[in-house]
Amino acid sequence: MGRPLIEVDPTRPVEEQREVLQNRWHPDIPAVVEVRPGDTFVVECLDWTGGQVRNDDDASDIRDMDLTPNHHLTGPIAVRGAEPGDILVVDILDLGPHPKMPWGYTGIFARSNGGGFLTDHFPEAHKAIWDFHGVYATSRHVPGVKIPAIPHPGILGTAPSHQLLQRWNERERKLIARDPNRVPPLALPPEPRNAILGSLRPGTPEFDRIAREAARTIPPRENGGNRDIKNLTRGARAYLPVYVPGAKLTVGDLHFTQGDGEITFCGAIEMAGWIELHVDLIKDGMNKYGIRHPMFEPSPIEPRFSRYLVFEGYSVDEEGEQYYLDPHVAYRRACLEAVQYLKGFGYTGEEAYTILGAAPVEGRISAIVDIPNACCTLWLPTEIFEFDIRPGTQGPVARVQGGRLARAR
Amino acid sequence: MGRPLIEVDPTRPVEEQREVLQNRWHPDIPAVVEVRPGDTFVVECLDWTGGQVRNDDDASDIRDMDLTPNHHLTGPIAVRGAEPGDILVVDILDLGPHPKMPWGYTGIFARSNGGGFLTDHFPEAHKAIWDFHGVYATSRHVPGVKIPAIPHPGILGTAPSHQLLQRWNERERKLIARDPNRVPPLALPPEPRNAILGSLRPGTPEFDRIAREAARTIPPRENGGNRDIKNLTRGARAYLPVYVPGAKLTVGDLHFTQGDGEITFCGAIEMAGWIELHVDLIKDGMNKYGIRHPMFEPSPIEPRFSRYLVFEGYSVDEEGEQYYLDPHVAYRRACLEAVQYLKGFGYTGEEAYTILGAAPVEGRISAIVDIPNACCTLWLPTEIFEFDIRPGTQGPVARVQGGRLARAR
Amino acid sequence: MGRPLIEVDPTRPVEEQREVLQNRWHPDIPAVVEVRPGDTFVVECLDWTGGQVRNDDDASDIRDMDLTPNHHLTGPIAVRGAEPGDILVVDILDLGPHPKMPWGYTGIFARSNGGGFLTDHFPEAHKAIWDFHGVYATSRHVPGVKIPAIPHPGILGTAPSHQLLQRWNERERKLIARDPNRVPPLALPPEPRNAILGSLRPGTPEFDRIAREAARTIPPRENGGNRDIKNLTRGARAYLPVYVPGAKLTVGDLHFTQGDGEITFCGAIEMAGWIELHVDLIKDGMNKYGIRHPMFEPSPIEPRFSRYLVFEGYSVDEEGEQYYLDPHVAYRRACLEAVQYLKGFGYTGEEAYTILGAAPVEGRISAIVDIPNACCTLWLPTEIFEFDIRPGTQGPVARVQGGRLARAR
Amino acid sequence: MGRPLIEVDPTRPVEEQREVLQNRWHPDIPAVVEVRPGDTFVVECLDWTGGQVRNDDDASDIRDMDLTPNHHLTGPIAVRGAEPGDILVVDILDLGPHPKMPWGYTGIFARSNGGGFLTDHFPEAHKAIWDFHGVYATSRHVPGVKIPAIPHPGILGTAPSHQLLQRWNERERKLIARDPNRVPPLALPPEPRNAILGSLRPGTPEFDRIAREAARTIPPRENGGNRDIKNLTRGARAYLPVYVPGAKLTVGDLHFTQGDGEITFCGAIEMAGWIELHVDLIKDGMNKYGIRHPMFEPSPIEPRFSRYLVFEGYSVDEEGEQYYLDPHVAYRRACLEAVQYLKGFGYTGEEAYTILGAAPVEGRISAIVDIPNACCTLWLPTEIFEFDIRPGTQGPVARVQGGRLARAR
Repeated sequence: MGRPLIEVDPTRPVEEQREVLQNRWHPDIPAVVEVRPGDTFVVECLDWTGGQVRNDDDASDIRDMDLTPNHHLTGPIAVRGAEPGDILVVDILDLGPHPKMPWGYTGIFARSNGGGFLTDHFPEAHKAIWDFHGVYATSRHVPGVKIPAIPHPGILGTAPSHQLLQRWNERERKLIARDPNRVPPLALPPEPRNAILGSLRPGTPEFDRIAREAARTIPPRENGGNRDIKNLTRGARAYLPVYVPGAKLTVGDLHFTQGDGEITFCGAIEMAGWIELHVDLIKDGMNKYGIRHPMFEPSPIEPRFSRYLVFEGYSVDEEGEQYYLDPHVAYRRACLEAVQYLKGFGYTGEEAYTILGAAPVEGRISAIVDIPNACCTLWLPTEIFEFDIRPGTQGPVARVQGGRLARAR
Repeated sequence: MGRPLIEVDPTRPVEEQREVLQNRWHPDIPAVVEVRPGDTFVVECLDWTGGQVRNDDDASDIRDMDLTPNHHLTGPIAVRGAEPGDILVVDILDLGPHPKMPWGYTGIFARSNGGGFLTDHFPEAHKAIWDFHGVYATSRHVPGVKIPAIPHPGILGTAPSHQLLQRWNERERKLIARDPNRVPPLALPPEPRNAILGSLRPGTPEFDRIAREAARTIPPRENGGNRDIKNLTRGARAYLPVYVPGAKLTVGDLHFTQGDGEITFCGAIEMAGWIELHVDLIKDGMNKYGIRHPMFEPSPIEPRFSRYLVFEGYSVDEEGEQYYLDPHVAYRRACLEAVQYLKGFGYTGEEAYTILGAAPVEGRISAIVDIPNACCTLWLPTEIFEFDIRPGTQGPVARVQGGRLARAR
Repeated sequence: MGRPLIEVDPTRPVEEQREVLQNRWHPDIPAVVEVRPGDTFVVECLDWTGGQVRNDDDASDIRDMDLTPNHHLTGPIAVRGAEPGDILVVDILDLGPHPKMPWGYTGIFARSNGGGFLTDHFPEAHKAIWDFHGVYATSRHVPGVKIPAIPHPGILGTAPSHQLLQRWNERERKLIARDPNRVPPLALPPEPRNAILGSLRPGTPEFDRIAREAARTIPPRENGGNRDIKNLTRGARAYLPVYVPGAKLTVGDLHFTQGDGEITFCGAIEMAGWIELHVDLIKDGMNKYGIRHPMFEPSPIEPRFSRYLVFEGYSVDEEGEQYYLDPHVAYRRACLEAVQYLKGFGYTGEEAYTILGAAPVEGRISAIVDIPNACCTLWLPTEIFEFDIRPGTQGPVARVQGGRLARAR
Repeated sequence: MGRPLIEVDPTRPVEEQREVLQNRWHPDIPAVVEVRPGDTFVVECLDWTGGQVRNDDDASDIRDMDLTPNHHLTGPIAVRGAEPGDILVVDILDLGPHPKMPWGYTGIFARSNGGGFLTDHFPEAHKAIWDFHGVYATSRHVPGVKIPAIPHPGILGTAPSHQLLQRWNERERKLIARDPNRVPPLALPPEPRNAILGSLRPGTPEFDRIAREAARTIPPRENGGNRDIKNLTRGARAYLPVYVPGAKLTVGDLHFTQGDGEITFCGAIEMAGWIELHVDLIKDGMNKYGIRHPMFEPSPIEPRFSRYLVFEGYSVDEEGEQYYLDPHVAYRRACLEAVQYLKGFGYTGEEAYTILGAAPVEGRISAIVDIPNACCTLWLPTEIFEFDIRPGTQGPVARVQGGRLARAR
């Protein structure tokens, strides 16, 4: 696939390679390189934390992580001829772990540091290290599972226009204002501290202006961004709206696999890696197709399973309070049912939670109009387990115990 | 498959066959029949409205429908030996349209009569009639689509215990109390009017007591009920908690197909029909597996597609207001993007909305921790269209017009 | 689906309903009914033997069967406007077991009566009865398996022209002449005895002429016919060449499921049933597409599996003799490997052979140019077994014994 | 994935790296390296010809190729503790093109040089070069197709014992003796010329003895070998019989994709590359499971399609001669029907033939007992074409012309 158009090195400090990185969204971050419609190219990416997580058995790195420098993304990549209103067609041709970092990790973030989807139940930090064996991952911290790869970029996006950026900042500020001291926060405002803006030098007025205005990269928005959609895997095609001349494509936060929702927050199997892309343009595509958000076509090479165990949740919370058609609550309840079920097979809660974040589970909105209950379902592929996880009339017949598998009772 | 254990006739008035029907959840509705673990049997079901919808081109039946007598369900069916705490294993062996009613319908409910998921955008009633051609459905009201069957019971549930019923009523009453006059309402309290309780005779004190206490059948709850999960199709296995002696299984609201979320409310292709079931018990299963909600295993015979067009939505509403990790808003935005996209191919908004309700679209929770935006995705299988619905560089090349297909422009 | 266009009754003698049946191919068999392009209709079919097999535990009916009256097919159905050179497009909309015969059977034919694919290894007659439970079949004669339906017509074909019929007869006669007394025979010449030709009356000169000329229905040929392709299931679309005015479509030999190759000869789960069809025409289609054989598109509703155990065979026979790129030998060796493997799990050879005939196994030509060995593979979906049939380091851990399942050793 | 255990360089002469290569099967070829059960490792492979094919538009390299030095395989790799009778479990964890050769080729061999499956119809040499774009391949020589990767080793095998080798040589000699001068030949006897035997030095008595006895690597045999099974792709697990101490695993002939049968002989997209393997042992596995041939489990990451056009063939040859249940003839006829069909869309015969060799078509044995006709089917996934290849009532609406796509007529 030839030499990467942009190279990074996960074993070197971020500081030494910041000219090809960005960790904020802003139209004025200068492009690192330019490509043309029809081009195929490879870029490399650091893991989302820029190397803050160690391959060890101690989760203090997750617990104490400073989130302000995340995500460490590669770009922007200008596309010649792209104009606002076009659709940028990005084919994700292939991607994989960085040759210098053949492992990944899943983290449960502490409630005090942002938390995750089940943070009220799992308020402490936790970490699992995964080893890559070709298209499979296994973990010394999660016994009995072997997960096939569905590698994908957690983040793939174009630069917002000034106007769009302003809209983001306004609407998010309003939300924060409702409960400014909430832990975890409702949203994250622009944060100049630890901003990385490619070739712009910290301390210059231009850098400081952009750092003050630029949007954080945590949420997905109308430019794509941190969508964390596992199905944007090799073979998929993304359609991204163009908001600025040159489109300014940015990519990073690569994952080896992930479950729908990435529920532990750092729930994918996070990795540094490389990605091969092909770009093209649909001129005036946003008008031609009436779209304002990204869309995509999935890959014929997604891993597919035929056996799932499907857990259901309704929009009634753990204390029995009724919500109105709330799939957030419903999906949480489905996840909690799955955690409980996995505990019956010997997993700790943290192990179960980690599996739901990292394995290619599907999260579906099954019912959304049957007042007052939304119904969400969590689809757990039973084939990722090395033992029979399906219900039988006798109860579980095999269990994991202290990292090993044993006959139950 | 032999003579049905319970027969109904969609061409006869509900009143004449109410002894095998129920439209409320309550532990004291007497069982119609008893089966044993290991039994296979067939029961028939009316369509959910009990015949209130006509096969014509006028949506006034949808607009003016009295919802209090819905859903018209078949049961309860007692399972010998079932006790609270058991899991009832229900294999959905097969189901199909009622021989006397070889057609179905999809309705968009008016905002004033309950509405649907996009009711702010589609406040008026609308109806589409579908003809069944074996495993495919087509509609004279929705040109250019041919939908493969994924038949399923919208409702499959066990009876709640007295205690569970009380909990339901309390939590839903509290929700209603927040905005009692809302249109559409937040939830529906017990409604004695038009209650159908099997063999119990209206006017008796027992009937009146139960009708006052019984829960409506609209929402899914811990007993299963109106989950509207399209994947509970023939070949699937449902695991249902047992709350009362005999379990008291109830089934109905059969659908020929449906999209995840059933977004037009009456969004499935609704039908009267028959269903073949097999039942078994996992004694003390709720403890053995630590579950409190239903779960299921999908069928090897689900229709599968390899090509989808996937629309994304984030939790920012149509007016630009930012919500906190709200998949309800995110899925609505994804649906609206899809409606807009389909309009580019000549569909009216109502036609597009109907397709999203009836076709086997998937609704996925793709990101739920990236504050403040949830990301939901709507997966539209492109193979249900009789023309190429995928994006090309030239814009749409074919369009539907006045019910027919034509080259665009 | 309305009243069948052609009805048959599997509980009545063939003799009483022969006016809608045919068991030979000939252009001059009069059409039973006429339909138009665009029509949808249902016809019923006897099982291929016309009721010669009993639901009992004695295989003497298989052993002693007179094959001359088989297959008992329904038709011909004329399609208005069809002309030689057209392609008849037949959508297989749905099919199922006959309401009067809710069971099926699989037979191993004795070597002396035609045999099957492994007849040298299984020279005796054998029978298994299958009960239908919705979309699943189980058998009291084959423990531990539950097979999802892939119902299909074993035979679907158009009438040959006089010229094509003559070609068939000539080429098959030549083959027979090479070894006229072989058991089993190389091919079957026209056989007037027990011919059924619809409304034509036996004993008339017209009947006798046709009976003398007409081709047997055993092999598939350029008109489709007995292709035994399991993938022609509900939802599939067949393209059939038209050779005579009106096309004269004939259908029958319905199967509940079948493995590729139908290796026990009567290897599908044979059933009487009904089938719903839709017909259309591509005028001059054989020229437009340059085809001379049938083709088809499979169904989105085929059962799909993700786990298979795949057995390989090469073109070296059981005695070690080397054949030249012979997939017949290679597939037989793959089947024998699978039989041997299943015996390790407690199955008798006959049970294993029956499973390979009836379950939806796939037979693939994997290598056909690597002189001198063809390599064929037999794909056995492991999900049809109610216990774990995959290899483990310890050897089989569960086995069937006397019809029940037990822990091994 | 770490540094390869065995490295090769496709840009260097074979002669310089022959110590890690072998192109014959023999028990006495010394192992290059030793691994242990449980080990994961990477080895690199030359393309099967060892670099004889150029990336240009001239097929003379295919036409004039000396086949005696093929295949250029990597190994043998000894597995510590493996003994005759064990099963070697080989997980194919990942594989891909060699970094120094980012392209591949498909060749049609001339009849005079071995030919291919349709050599009577395509007697001349032909070549197509494919460029790899991540998981897709396209070719300047085959317009309008884009093929997703199903990378796999064409050859994966263990060493034969002396006894087994002797059996191979005897049975193949007997076959050759039936028609020793046939072009192409029926089989290939041991050929000392151009033998490569790893670290053994040519000219030594040991080398000469082995070169005289060793089997050619063309056919698949009981040790696996050149099975050309496309489904042995990344994620699959192979079970290989062990015949000699240490098993002596050999791998090579890597393919980017391939159709079932690899019908053009050099029909896969041939490539140099790397492969990551994991090995384990089932002690005494051949007895435990009663198997004598390799078997495998496919990968959850195979590309999957839902739309196919399926061509049928019967065992009647192009001259109308009838064969007895001969799937070789039947599959050839199905292939010829597909070639004819593709010509209707503007492809040359050579282009069509190349597509059938390289694209992931499936070849199935659909009927093998319906005397005298076998029925084989060729499944062509329509989704690999960049235009609509399915039949319509009007005939083809788009065609390729001179390497480009155009509206038909």
